[in-house]
Amino acid sequence: MATTTAAQRRAAAKVQFDAFLAACPSRQLLDRISDKWVVLILCALGGDGLPRPARGKGGGPRALRYSQLARTLAGVSQKMLTQTLRSLERDGLVTRTVTPTVPVTVTYELTDLGRSLLEVVRGLKTWAENNMTTVLAHREAYDARTSRP
Amino acid sequence: MATTTAAQRRAAAKVQFDAFLAACPSRQLLDRISDKWVVLILCALGGDGLPRPARGKGGGPRALRYSQLARTLAGVSQKMLTQTLRSLERDGLVTRTVTPTVPVTVTYELTDLGRSLLEVVRGLKTWAENNMTTVLAHREAYDARTSRP
Repeated sequence: MATTTAAQRRAAAKVQFDAFLAACPSRQLLDRISDKWVVLILCALGGDGLPRPARGKGGGPRALRYSQLARTLAGVSQKMLTQTLRSLERDGLVTRTVTPTVPVTVTYELTDLGRSLLEVVRGLKTWAENNMTTVLAHREAYDARTSRP
Repeated sequence: MATTTAAQRRAAAKVQFDAFLAACPSRQLLDRISDKWVVLILCALGGDGLPRPARGKGGGPRALRYSQLARTLAGVSQKMLTQTLRSLERDGLVTRTVTPTVPVTVTYELTDLGRSLLEVVRGLKTWAENNMTTVLAHREAYDARTSRP
């Protein structure tokens, strides 16, 4: 019933994808990109969180080595970083370049598609950082309200 | 070492919160808001995905009953929806109103803080829907490249 309504809405609006629908591939894609490691990797490749001299010209995006990413994303496990980077590469958001040095150098860089997503996810990170104090105050008030005996 | 650099960077920039740091509360908040159910709930309360007549004036945000949310977010489990709504309420992003009808009516509505986050997360949902075709093409190309014997 709900699905029919949504499907009719899609057809009427000539919308190809609708993340409200459980079976729509965009629901799974939304799930993939709604991930703190995706947000932090894209922001790091976009030049955020790097000391000035390590940034690209004008402080913009640049290629980063795996080890630089691991350092910037404090606390990320090797397994999680590797899996997330592979998924981002498969989705066309980052490119992986292997340079035949000894040992080989592997670098990651945002694609144009990745840069378009960066503009969106950077907003999430900034929102979390800018509104942390307000959210903490709300949590304290909520806990005081609900913990009354 | 990396933590020191990040801490120095924070101090220099007079930044209070930095989601790149594992121990920063904004890392946990980023994790909370980077969630497909959070995105879909906020979008639904913001008036997306509802048939026109059910929307607020001007198609904007409105109060929704629990059952309306459950219908709009196809496939969400009751447990997940309840947990996510409680967490959004605790963080000050939605308000929960109980009206003493028989049976009681429980409605959810965005707060001003929730509306500020909606502006960001709506971009995620739209990005996923608008770039689905491109991402699917990248996946196909990647799988063809990597599955060679």
